[in-house]
Amino acid sequence: MNAPWPVVLRDGDTALRPIRLRDQRAWREVNRRNRDWLRPWEATIPPPPPGALQPARPTYRQMVRHLRREAHAGRMLPFVVEHRGALVGQLTVAGITWGSMCSAHIGYWVDEAVAGRGVIPTAVALAVDHCFRGVGLHRIEVCIRPENGPSRRVVEKLGFREEGLRPRYLHIDGGWRDHMVFALTVEEVPEGLLHRYRRSRPATPRN
Amino acid sequence: MNAPWPVVLRDGDTALRPIRLRDQRAWREVNRRNRDWLRPWEATIPPPPPGALQPARPTYRQMVRHLRREAHAGRMLPFVVEHRGALVGQLTVAGITWGSMCSAHIGYWVDEAVAGRGVIPTAVALAVDHCFRGVGLHRIEVCIRPENGPSRRVVEKLGFREEGLRPRYLHIDGGWRDHMVFALTVEEVPEGLLHRYRRSRPATPRN
Repeated sequence: MNAPWPVVLRDGDTALRPIRLRDQRAWREVNRRNRDWLRPWEATIPPPPPGALQPARPTYRQMVRHLRREAHAGRMLPFVVEHRGALVGQLTVAGITWGSMCSAHIGYWVDEAVAGRGVIPTAVALAVDHCFRGVGLHRIEVCIRPENGPSRRVVEKLGFREEGLRPRYLHIDGGWRDHMVFALTVEEVPEGLLHRYRRSRPATPRN
Repeated sequence: MNAPWPVVLRDGDTALRPIRLRDQRAWREVNRRNRDWLRPWEATIPPPPPGALQPARPTYRQMVRHLRREAHAGRMLPFVVEHRGALVGQLTVAGITWGSMCSAHIGYWVDEAVAGRGVIPTAVALAVDHCFRGVGLHRIEVCIRPENGPSRRVVEKLGFREEGLRPRYLHIDGGWRDHMVFALTVEEVPEGLLHRYRRSRPATPRN
């Protein structure tokens, strides 16, 4: 069993590791190349009340410092996604809540250049198994805009259970957007999610 | 507009105010009298992994200190409910999350002796209006066991929107229990929830 954090999780060509300040250059490069692909799904900050100033968009350094503070407090696991050693995306376990809830949610994005190759399904499976076995959580949810076909295919491939629609749930791409909710509890994947995902895939040659 | 915290919210005979260490005696007395009435809805701590010790049930002082730390960090608003100046229950806004979410959830319990008189609906309306107008949140949810008729009547009276079922969502009364989710976003109650609730009630003499 892994320590909850910091941790590196790996399966074949795909790895999850803690985000670092020195990932800035690679992170910016991937984000710049994928601007149009990612924009419709990008979290934004809602407008402040009338008279207040809109807060500035955080810099990369501010984002990483915030993520690390939250990780240190046990409320987040902020990973980057690597494919063959290159930074290709980000996966964050957030909203970690204990007590009678023992729950968290997962968000992710990936470079369009590697989309559809099973990188994010593998990364989500690694993260979910770690949350259930290494961290001790009971439930993980993923919220996705109904329009986001590629992201919905990720949770379909992994056999997440669809729980319903939350109208105007998250501020994305400049407005409050409906989200579909997909969830798993630990009892639903006794064999582990990565193991179940692997079994469900036809054997394919690696390319 | 009220400051987010600490704050006292009041409507007629019903008030919400921050929980205090010196409420211990009244809190214990109400809980003791209502043990059977509350047990099926009471949050419990899931069992630890094999080999680990079950943590002791927190004392009143530990609970209040935890709630106050969370309130100080801006993640909770831990109220007690008063009816005609007597402590009759507890209402906690928890899971306050900012960024692209701006969301929280509300939990409550009340003395059976005052149940059905509109105390909790009024308290929830006061808390929701404060969350939307004083705190600046966008969405509030309430999760209720399907079997909990009295609690479901609270959100029905207030016109919360039913969003669906979360199987095995919270550890209640010693097991993982399904919960129905009810939610409101600020756009759904432009006139305020208390105002809307008052309008929906037939005028009744106070007793």
